[in-house]
Amino acid sequence: MVEIAVMGYGTVGSGVVEVLARHADSIAKRAKEQIGIKYILDLRDFPGSPFEDRFTKSFETILGDPEVRIVVEVMGGLHPAYDYVKKCLENGKSVVTSNKELVAAKGAELLKIAQKNNLNFLFEASVGGGIPIIRPISQCLAANEVVGIAGILNGTTNFILTKMIREKKGFDETLALAQKLGYAERDPSADIKGYDACRKICILASLAYGKHVYPEQVHTEGITNITLRDVEYAAVWGGVVKLIGMVKRTPDKKVQIIVCPMFVSHESQLATVDDVFNGIMVRGDSTGDVVFYGKGAGKLPTASAVVADVIDCVKHFKARKYLYWDDGSPDYVEDYRENEVGMFVCVKAKADTEERVEQLFGKVDYLIRRDAEPGEMAFLVPVMKEKVISEKLARLSETGAEILNTIRIGDL
Amino acid sequence: MVEIAVMGYGTVGSGVVEVLARHADSIAKRAKEQIGIKYILDLRDFPGSPFEDRFTKSFETILGDPEVRIVVEVMGGLHPAYDYVKKCLENGKSVVTSNKELVAAKGAELLKIAQKNNLNFLFEASVGGGIPIIRPISQCLAANEVVGIAGILNGTTNFILTKMIREKKGFDETLALAQKLGYAERDPSADIKGYDACRKICILASLAYGKHVYPEQVHTEGITNITLRDVEYAAVWGGVVKLIGMVKRTPDKKVQIIVCPMFVSHESQLATVDDVFNGIMVRGDSTGDVVFYGKGAGKLPTASAVVADVIDCVKHFKARKYLYWDDGSPDYVEDYRENEVGMFVCVKAKADTEERVEQLFGKVDYLIRRDAEPGEMAFLVPVMKEKVISEKLARLSETGAEILNTIRIGDL
Repeated sequence: MVEIAVMGYGTVGSGVVEVLARHADSIAKRAKEQIGIKYILDLRDFPGSPFEDRFTKSFETILGDPEVRIVVEVMGGLHPAYDYVKKCLENGKSVVTSNKELVAAKGAELLKIAQKNNLNFLFEASVGGGIPIIRPISQCLAANEVVGIAGILNGTTNFILTKMIREKKGFDETLALAQKLGYAERDPSADIKGYDACRKICILASLAYGKHVYPEQVHTEGITNITLRDVEYAAVWGGVVKLIGMVKRTPDKKVQIIVCPMFVSHESQLATVDDVFNGIMVRGDSTGDVVFYGKGAGKLPTASAVVADVIDCVKHFKARKYLYWDDGSPDYVEDYRENEVGMFVCVKAKADTEERVEQLFGKVDYLIRRDAEPGEMAFLVPVMKEKVISEKLARLSETGAEILNTIRIGDL
Repeated sequence: MVEIAVMGYGTVGSGVVEVLARHADSIAKRAKEQIGIKYILDLRDFPGSPFEDRFTKSFETILGDPEVRIVVEVMGGLHPAYDYVKKCLENGKSVVTSNKELVAAKGAELLKIAQKNNLNFLFEASVGGGIPIIRPISQCLAANEVVGIAGILNGTTNFILTKMIREKKGFDETLALAQKLGYAERDPSADIKGYDACRKICILASLAYGKHVYPEQVHTEGITNITLRDVEYAAVWGGVVKLIGMVKRTPDKKVQIIVCPMFVSHESQLATVDDVFNGIMVRGDSTGDVVFYGKGAGKLPTASAVVADVIDCVKHFKARKYLYWDDGSPDYVEDYRENEVGMFVCVKAKADTEERVEQLFGKVDYLIRRDAEPGEMAFLVPVMKEKVISEKLARLSETGAEILNTIRIGDL
């Protein structure tokens, strides 16, 4: 029997307890040990719960109990999760977490403590919910150089964009619907501003290239500026607007990494990843593109990924799982303005704007939509450095043309 | 330094040697050991090869060398691969293989020998080429009951069907093109008759449900009967024709398993798996649908999956990887005629055929295509047992209507 503790009895935590109870026999068979839940840490009371006798409000009780060998952290947030996890690892307990904020901010440090103490620190559930992605990147793709990773990493924003595309509804109206359906939180900023996707691409980038990328190093744009107009232009162009998290290796061993809405061609496998689903494309030099697709969040998908890590942990008490990456550094992430990219641009034009555009960018392709407003003009800037595009658009602005929006063209 | 031997220097074998050489440093870092290729077994000579000194024609040399701890079997075919692999496992050598024919026919037996001798027998590359699928099913989905698996498992047939759909070319013409491009072999029967897909779904079914399913237990239809007419009807219906391998659990712990062309709705994630790509959908009771997508074959994708297994094997010399399933039994696979399924039926009708159809099946939906031949009639049989459909169609035949084709409707 291996005793574990579950810290946090919210959506994911209660799911973990449910999955462990429901599949107890098959889990024991796979783990080669019974897994017992000795404690559940939560500040709230759950009278009448079948697990009532396991609840505790004291982290110290868990920390001080040598029988507890694995601690599942599903509280979310950075504090006190970070302190608790660190103390567990320093006191001989392996940790399994679904907490992307924690891993994105403190992964390198916690992995180092785990390695020093010959423990596991596992976090499959932190990216992609129930979609296996951490393990495939670290193991199956071990014989590849990862050329790049691009993904639709946030279900809430993908639901909103899908609704806007399919039902021609505006952003605010669709956000309200997502909140009503429980797909968006009352304070939706972590999702719609791209922070959640940013944490996830940081974790994937750190794992794939062995060096920590911190969220604050990543240029992050959300979807709050995306309008029905943009969605219609994407359709005219031959694709859809998706919130993409993306990382690539540069020749000098740095990374290009960004989170932003992009035009995604109908040809791309990511274009059909709709609703609350996530899709993650890993480009390997040997495998080519491999895509992982599924529900990126939700109680049971996330809980089952946590439990799979617990099983793996039990099976590997002796041979530690080799997840590891180094600390990051300030110069590791290339300035995104140095990235080469194509750009969709929509402007409110003056009489001479077309002429000015061609002076600045040469010959460009124009997009025409049916319900365009008077003076509205949309064109595609060919691939060049972002900072050059910005400079040229600033000069276009000076001629009186108003830039309504710009959206990067994904090469996915 | 861990010494290995590679048996077979064909497409995959030369790829394995290439990947091990090209990524030697990063592989050593991940495996925590240098990996050396001591022998390459092939009956042919490769003068001038940079690995010329490693070639041997003698399996006994490999078997008798105690330094060789891992043997990579990439010869393909059942004989002599089966004897060689068995002898290796009986003599203390772990085995990594890409040989789906071997695993589908002898998996349970070889896994048992491996377990008895505390060795690894790994075969990630046997299904889906470079797509990680064996490991995700066995590990990440450990906390799920697998409700079912459905996949496009053969790139050659998927290429042919995609071309037929997109370019409105017939089967024979498209097969010839696939052969010219190297996507189909000179003798394409293993692909187009569905045998290759059958071996792969057998491996996935055995792994997911813990009991061996043998290829000869699986009703297998290829794509040789699929015509442009069928493809056009699928489009009218709202989907595409795909060769699907599929397995489901029955309530009495048996399996339903089949390989056949199916109508796949445009709503399904598998509908957009085109060209030589494979896509595998795993439905878990907790995760929901998870889809894995990528190139299912090819030298480097397959080789990189083999090398990933080698790395995993090196890392787990002490803690054996727990892949395991039991021997099969004759009554384990349900008779496919007992499966409930919807069916597309195309007939050459007589004057009274519509009336007869409705007498037999009740009200059915008809499909109309633009270039239908005189008398051609297509309709959709609602979900019922296959054997009932067959009996009713036999009676329809007796009335003089000629059954041109029947294709199952996938619920994917």
